[in-house]
Amino acid sequence: MQQVTVDLGERSYPIQVGAGILDGNPELCRLAQGRTVAIVTDTTVDRLFGTRLADTLLPIAHRLIRIALAPGETTKSWESLNHIFDQLLSHQFDRNSLIVALGGGVVGDLAGFASATYQRGVDFVQIPTTLLAQVDSSVGGKTAINHARGKNMIGAFHQPRLVIADTSTLVSLPRRELAAGLAEVVKHGAIADPAYLERVSAAMPRLLAHDPDELAAAVLDSIRIKAAVVARDEREAGARALLNFGHTFGHAIEAGAGYGSWLHGEAVAAGMVMATDLSVRLGHIAEVDLARMKSIIGEAGLPLQGPAWPVARYLSYMSIDKKAVRGVPRFVVLEALGRARTQEVDPALVALAVSANTVAAAAG
Amino acid sequence: MQQVTVDLGERSYPIQVGAGILDGNPELCRLAQGRTVAIVTDTTVDRLFGTRLADTLLPIAHRLIRIALAPGETTKSWESLNHIFDQLLSHQFDRNSLIVALGGGVVGDLAGFASATYQRGVDFVQIPTTLLAQVDSSVGGKTAINHARGKNMIGAFHQPRLVIADTSTLVSLPRRELAAGLAEVVKHGAIADPAYLERVSAAMPRLLAHDPDELAAAVLDSIRIKAAVVARDEREAGARALLNFGHTFGHAIEAGAGYGSWLHGEAVAAGMVMATDLSVRLGHIAEVDLARMKSIIGEAGLPLQGPAWPVARYLSYMSIDKKAVRGVPRFVVLEALGRARTQEVDPALVALAVSANTVAAAAG
Repeated sequence: MQQVTVDLGERSYPIQVGAGILDGNPELCRLAQGRTVAIVTDTTVDRLFGTRLADTLLPIAHRLIRIALAPGETTKSWESLNHIFDQLLSHQFDRNSLIVALGGGVVGDLAGFASATYQRGVDFVQIPTTLLAQVDSSVGGKTAINHARGKNMIGAFHQPRLVIADTSTLVSLPRRELAAGLAEVVKHGAIADPAYLERVSAAMPRLLAHDPDELAAAVLDSIRIKAAVVARDEREAGARALLNFGHTFGHAIEAGAGYGSWLHGEAVAAGMVMATDLSVRLGHIAEVDLARMKSIIGEAGLPLQGPAWPVARYLSYMSIDKKAVRGVPRFVVLEALGRARTQEVDPALVALAVSANTVAAAAG
Repeated sequence: MQQVTVDLGERSYPIQVGAGILDGNPELCRLAQGRTVAIVTDTTVDRLFGTRLADTLLPIAHRLIRIALAPGETTKSWESLNHIFDQLLSHQFDRNSLIVALGGGVVGDLAGFASATYQRGVDFVQIPTTLLAQVDSSVGGKTAINHARGKNMIGAFHQPRLVIADTSTLVSLPRRELAAGLAEVVKHGAIADPAYLERVSAAMPRLLAHDPDELAAAVLDSIRIKAAVVARDEREAGARALLNFGHTFGHAIEAGAGYGSWLHGEAVAAGMVMATDLSVRLGHIAEVDLARMKSIIGEAGLPLQGPAWPVARYLSYMSIDKKAVRGVPRFVVLEALGRARTQEVDPALVALAVSANTVAAAAG
């Protein structure tokens, strides 16, 4: 078992990474000791790991309830949030209760936001069971639900007390979801560490084959990069925005397609191609860098192109992106493979970067 | 104009107190300069002060929208919150937007929670227009909405950037609401400052007559007490809980009666009598202290007794109070008039303190 600490003063917390570290986890047992505990998960993950986790917590907790929601992005809604609140209140959960989020990004974001707002904030633990959640969403305290007009529009910064990334839970992960998680792994390399980007590329076949050692190494390295960025900028006033590389485009794809039809990582993959293309147009990097990014994203089996929509459709979904400042969208762009920055960009350039990387453009 | 600073490090903010300080307020204009701004208010307050505030903000803001909700406690709901989010999103409000809460506690709590969670948090300004909001709810960053199972059950700590307590807005306040605000003024004296408690008692006739000097002095002293407590304990881990004196009982009255039929301050008044009675039963203070508290609360024209319910009804509403630790309720009790503490209390004593101070008991 390896451990990374997210250094945030009194809100610091450990992220534990390793295979099989969930069962009887001592740090989890210490946190749950004598408290009312709610496991929040989805029905798929509940079938796989719910009983294992409950077996660990039952002898320890004062009282334990399990809340299993429908799987999928549509669960990140007001309705699910209220269902959680109803359960917590009907079981008389107080401020000293503990919420344990067991699942992927949807469960983590939703249960995290419930923890942030139930009685103005209770402790929570993240147990991410997808690669995407292990390398990205479970780290850094971003919690949210979706709104019809935009993804993650309602939320809070609320740091967990502990993250347990048990890589043995990834064995059952479908290849499509594994690949979607690799999009964020590639992103971490692209914005922060060129050597890591190349290591990921070299390891790609073994990663896609669920090789446990490669997965553990990639999860650990990605978490280290993300934890360092979050420690510098908890509330995304500056450096943290770099983690949104590919996300302004990606969110537009997800929102425009209807949440759930594109996996988040797939949308981010196509979004990274657009953002890299934009970086070329801005003169920051060369065509060869764009080709290299496309090659690595392609090795992961991820899409290189967005849906065949008019550019205006992309732009309209981008205009309400959270990173926009008074309607002028800011973008994370690459200064080199392995180094990123944010800047405002002329919408005309954005339009070119989009249209060059949609299915329609490729067909033309 | 007088100013009190709530000292919370990088989240510190000024509270300005005075008559007529709203129009053209320089600090408000500085904050609103060039930003998208939403005024959140209720239709009653909007008619009284909405245009005055808009006149100040219109020349300054990049864009201004006004959101006027129905007045009353039932507005502190999911539905109202979503209405605010819909408005903000449809007007493309970004993270740099500013929300200005203009109104009483309901508007402040609701708009504050919207600010805490819209795009994971935007700046907001509190402009409280009731005495209750000026001396209590607008100070300290507690934001919330209600849930069918309990008041303020869903919320966040989110500090405003500025509070403007313009005592000229209190001139139109109905006497019943003025009295309800005085309940929190009395509370501040009871838990923290015996001399202030006696000053308030002496000034009571002039306070109830809307005397502007007396109101400004009471608002300022109350805010000083509350700001000092909040600065010591922002997230209610300890000292801040003392501000809940009378509130465990009071919340039970409000919830049991249905939100809105008792004003918050009225419920807190009857709750303070119960909590003071409990303090006598615990041997902390004498019967004469209870009589003094009843006398002062009576001078304000506030109720001394809770509704004629069975004690069990009170206790059941208290068991899910946020201050409960694993089902055993904690209470704020007086060690003397002017000094408070929290402790767990035998439910049998709580039952006696309730039954001695309900309408039925008085009739018997």
